[in-house]
Amino acid sequence: MIKIDFEKMGGLIPAVIQDNESGEILMVAFMDKKTLDLTLESGKTWFFSRTRNKYWMKGEESGNTQEVVEVLTDCDADTVVIKVKQNGPAACHTGNRSCFYVKYEQGAWVEHSNPLFDPAEVYKK
Amino acid sequence: MIKIDFEKMGGLIPAVIQDNESGEILMVAFMDKKTLDLTLESGKTWFFSRTRNKYWMKGEESGNTQEVVEVLTDCDADTVVIKVKQNGPAACHTGNRSCFYVKYEQGAWVEHSNPLFDPAEVYKK
Repeated sequence: MIKIDFEKMGGLIPAVIQDNESGEILMVAFMDKKTLDLTLESGKTWFFSRTRNKYWMKGEESGNTQEVVEVLTDCDADTVVIKVKQNGPAACHTGNRSCFYVKYEQGAWVEHSNPLFDPAEVYKK
Repeated sequence: MIKIDFEKMGGLIPAVIQDNESGEILMVAFMDKKTLDLTLESGKTWFFSRTRNKYWMKGEESGNTQEVVEVLTDCDADTVVIKVKQNGPAACHTGNRSCFYVKYEQGAWVEHSNPLFDPAEVYKK
């Protein structure tokens, strides 16, 4: 029986969130056992924040939740890919559709920011 | 100027390898600064193996190298997505096209293995 291996990273695994329709990678965050279980049970994505040391559900403030469509793990069972239906215009807290809007070009990282909402409005609390 | 943040994970970042044409996520592995630099300079993917504690180029044994097409980082600059042209039939050492051939179904992880090469042949050394 396959079990997810949380030991390699001290209780955490990377979770790659992919748009189920376009295939675009929306974000990468981390899950511990509890937030993976919450994700599998609730059908919404939950994560563990390394910087804030807390559990969070994607969209809990913005409303831009993610509905789980498919969950995959890899040959080592130490990472998950979660295909989702993204609710709202964007996954990134910057307002960009995807968090991956920074591209390596000619030796430097270049932002290609195209916010679909105003973070100051959405996260006004 | 954006710099990649290797500090959150003790010198490592997750690298998501995505097929540039199909959008399929082929594998997730880890890079330190040296292997990210090697990847950017050589145009082939290099990783740091946490379990073997060594640098490795994808395909160095199998010949199934990956040609870098596009490199992206995220809003936190602590993860990279690398879009590649996969050489050879498959990215996974099991012979599967993608490492993510294990799917969560009705409460359990189920393998959907469909090897495109025989690992015993390819890794015979």
